[in-house]
Amino acid sequence: MSKVVAIMSMSIDGYVADLNDGVAEVFDWYFSSGDIEFETGGAAPMTFKVSGPSAQHLRDLWSELGSVLTGRRTFEIAQGWNGNHPWGPAFVLTHQIPDGWPRPNSTVHFVTDGIEGAVRQAKAAAGGKSVGVHGADVIQQLLNAGLLDELSIDTAAVLLGSGVRLFDRLAGGPTVLGNPTVTAGVGVTHLRYPVRKG
Amino acid sequence: MSKVVAIMSMSIDGYVADLNDGVAEVFDWYFSSGDIEFETGGAAPMTFKVSGPSAQHLRDLWSELGSVLTGRRTFEIAQGWNGNHPWGPAFVLTHQIPDGWPRPNSTVHFVTDGIEGAVRQAKAAAGGKSVGVHGADVIQQLLNAGLLDELSIDTAAVLLGSGVRLFDRLAGGPTVLGNPTVTAGVGVTHLRYPVRKG
Repeated sequence: MSKVVAIMSMSIDGYVADLNDGVAEVFDWYFSSGDIEFETGGAAPMTFKVSGPSAQHLRDLWSELGSVLTGRRTFEIAQGWNGNHPWGPAFVLTHQIPDGWPRPNSTVHFVTDGIEGAVRQAKAAAGGKSVGVHGADVIQQLLNAGLLDELSIDTAAVLLGSGVRLFDRLAGGPTVLGNPTVTAGVGVTHLRYPVRKG
Repeated sequence: MSKVVAIMSMSIDGYVADLNDGVAEVFDWYFSSGDIEFETGGAAPMTFKVSGPSAQHLRDLWSELGSVLTGRRTFEIAQGWNGNHPWGPAFVLTHQIPDGWPRPNSTVHFVTDGIEGAVRQAKAAAGGKSVGVHGADVIQQLLNAGLLDELSIDTAAVLLGSGVRLFDRLAGGPTVLGNPTVTAGVGVTHLRYPVRKG
């Protein structure tokens, strides 16, 4: 069964980016928390350098993923992953397809008919694996619609003080989550929560 | 050296209470996360029922504490701990001393000359042990003034959606914290961060 998994690095005070969409502080652990190299793959490859526990966490999580779902803002900030996201086919929820897209040989797709259609398409493309979700706004929409199966939060050991909050407009009152899987890295704590449903 | 340690239960989305100051969801782990009983002591004693790892976390943390620092709101919600807080002498930061206080045989004191004086008095009363701090507003004041040594956050596996945020008005931009000590409980993850200074 294809699951929908939100994956975000977040500061202790709940921010996923600063007021200018900068992610240097919350992404710092990806690049300097240890000596283990982790190659992202994709068309804009990066090499992470993390601690042993974080490397294992990343290997386990990424191996489960078969496609990506993001919002338009994440797509823009990532410059479209140069056309190919390392997790597989990418589905970008947007009102308007951006100029110059879709591109030839790209696996980036645009969904203009809302969150439910986006989840359906991303699941179909995942080939039985999970859909990884990036972006605070899309994650809030998924939670509010009862469409999220897991929250994988990399809690970075930093207080940002201001910025873009991961959780800011949740509807429907308290949601008790399942017991998390906890992985202690260096300067980051990986928390994977199952989302209990209805 | 007496340390100043902020101790709060917080939801994943950063709330320490709901919009009515209710703490049932974020305190749930204290009362039903396991079978190990933990007696609070004090003049309004409670018995927590937690998992083994949470019990060990509580024993370690509470044994380090020699006094308490809170804001007026926390004092009111806790009804003044019936005059004696289990951690030791309590110092309540307030503009006005509440009617009927201080009470005879109480170890609850009121500080009206600001956060620095409150810290000084609480440290002096701690007898070499640490000062435990409760209350979002006081913790924000301590962080902004560079007076906090540790953040001990019990991250409860719940999304509240709204309420009182632990971190809402931090000044001075990003603060990188030290690597946390992580204790995985049941429905709660205990994260103790050293606050790096200057």
